[in-house]
Amino acid sequence: MDMRERGDGEPSGAITLLPVTGLPEVRPGDDLAALLLAALDGASLQLQPGDVLALAQKIVSKAEGRMVNLADVTPGAEAERVAAEVNKDPRLVELVLRESESISRMRRGVLIVRHRLGFTSANAGIDRSNVPQGAGEEVVLLLPEDPDRSAAALRQALVERAGVDVAIVITDSHGRPFRQGTVGVAIGVAGLPALWDRRGEPDRQGYLLQHTEVGLADEIAAAASMVMGQAAEGVPAVLVRGLRLPPGDGRARDLYRPPELDLYR
Amino acid sequence: MDMRERGDGEPSGAITLLPVTGLPEVRPGDDLAALLLAALDGASLQLQPGDVLALAQKIVSKAEGRMVNLADVTPGAEAERVAAEVNKDPRLVELVLRESESISRMRRGVLIVRHRLGFTSANAGIDRSNVPQGAGEEVVLLLPEDPDRSAAALRQALVERAGVDVAIVITDSHGRPFRQGTVGVAIGVAGLPALWDRRGEPDRQGYLLQHTEVGLADEIAAAASMVMGQAAEGVPAVLVRGLRLPPGDGRARDLYRPPELDLYR
Repeated sequence: MDMRERGDGEPSGAITLLPVTGLPEVRPGDDLAALLLAALDGASLQLQPGDVLALAQKIVSKAEGRMVNLADVTPGAEAERVAAEVNKDPRLVELVLRESESISRMRRGVLIVRHRLGFTSANAGIDRSNVPQGAGEEVVLLLPEDPDRSAAALRQALVERAGVDVAIVITDSHGRPFRQGTVGVAIGVAGLPALWDRRGEPDRQGYLLQHTEVGLADEIAAAASMVMGQAAEGVPAVLVRGLRLPPGDGRARDLYRPPELDLYR
Repeated sequence: MDMRERGDGEPSGAITLLPVTGLPEVRPGDDLAALLLAALDGASLQLQPGDVLALAQKIVSKAEGRMVNLADVTPGAEAERVAAEVNKDPRLVELVLRESESISRMRRGVLIVRHRLGFTSANAGIDRSNVPQGAGEEVVLLLPEDPDRSAAALRQALVERAGVDVAIVITDSHGRPFRQGTVGVAIGVAGLPALWDRRGEPDRQGYLLQHTEVGLADEIAAAASMVMGQAAEGVPAVLVRGLRLPPGDGRARDLYRPPELDLYR
């Protein structure tokens, strides 16, 4: 297997998940690469080749100014109809529908959509937790407009300024069919294969592995999410160190199953 | 938040994923706790309070003797019918059906079932990769009979022999609706809450978090799976160190959505 060299001398095969704290509240137009480098510096962390920086989507969305005050949203007829069915704020539903390709499932309290980006999630990822609210405001946060593009731009900025090749995973928390509880998933990826195709590799007995495409970026996102969830106020970024990345520069969209291949759409 | 003390002086909030290698090929009846303690010792790793030991289901299944030679299986009429539809070995399909409550979806090459344990997965988790094969044999490996019970028994054995309170997560790799690629999930849990109920905790703005039940054991399994996948031959166990575990002693079955609450069954 062609693996990149790791940047340091950790115990063989160990992976470390390091919280990056000390970021200020991110505001529209902020230079996120600069804020991250300053926070890493403040935590005495230096980027190393092969590091993966996992970022909660909220800080990326905030830097991109994706906040919307519900007072500024006028729901259309479809939003009113859906809102009545799911018992949600029609203005929120209007935003969800604008961000979506289609409704996947709905019932009272639940609105699951296929997002225009290609994944399926509740409320199109729109959320108001950890969003600063002015007096009388009801501000919600949309996902980044194109998180794969955001990841690629951030990666380029970090490579240029830190002089080190790092990978980026932008994470969100999704619920799932079949299983209870949310888990971290990747919605933006740069610098690593999001989907790691291991078909054709031999196992210990020389038998060819089958059906082994690994959702590598999702596993990284879930691991980072453990660290992000360690503090009630949230840890917005996690440095994943020691992962031997397979070669490739994938996108989160590689992880989204096309509807025609989805038996559960 | 009530968090247990961690056992050492790592950088604040860092989590380390340490591969536990050096296990022999596990055989039916093996004392897995003893093998794990010897492997940890060989790797100069000592269990610490709050450690989570993530184990690939294969080593648990092998210790429990869950190998079946397909030559010993006689498919029934339903297995023959399903096998023809999905184009799989009728003997394998017979085993899948015996392990399942119902078929969730099938089509050529795909057989997704609701396992009698309550989760939904392809082929009821039955697999032949990394299973030693005698001459002319086609041996497959079933999941542990009751992985939550296996996890609890292993935990008790480790606590008794190592004198340290550790948690156990038994992992498998599952495909998913909506998303491509497999990810590690928990099929057996002891000593930690599999599903972490964070509803009611305030966010940074004092707004109460909603819909935040976290699939903690699944995130641990996904993180461990990253390490398990680092070597082509697989790493069968991973020590997860530094996670501040919320209190509770849950079961993997807490993660399985009851069919009546599943909009995608």
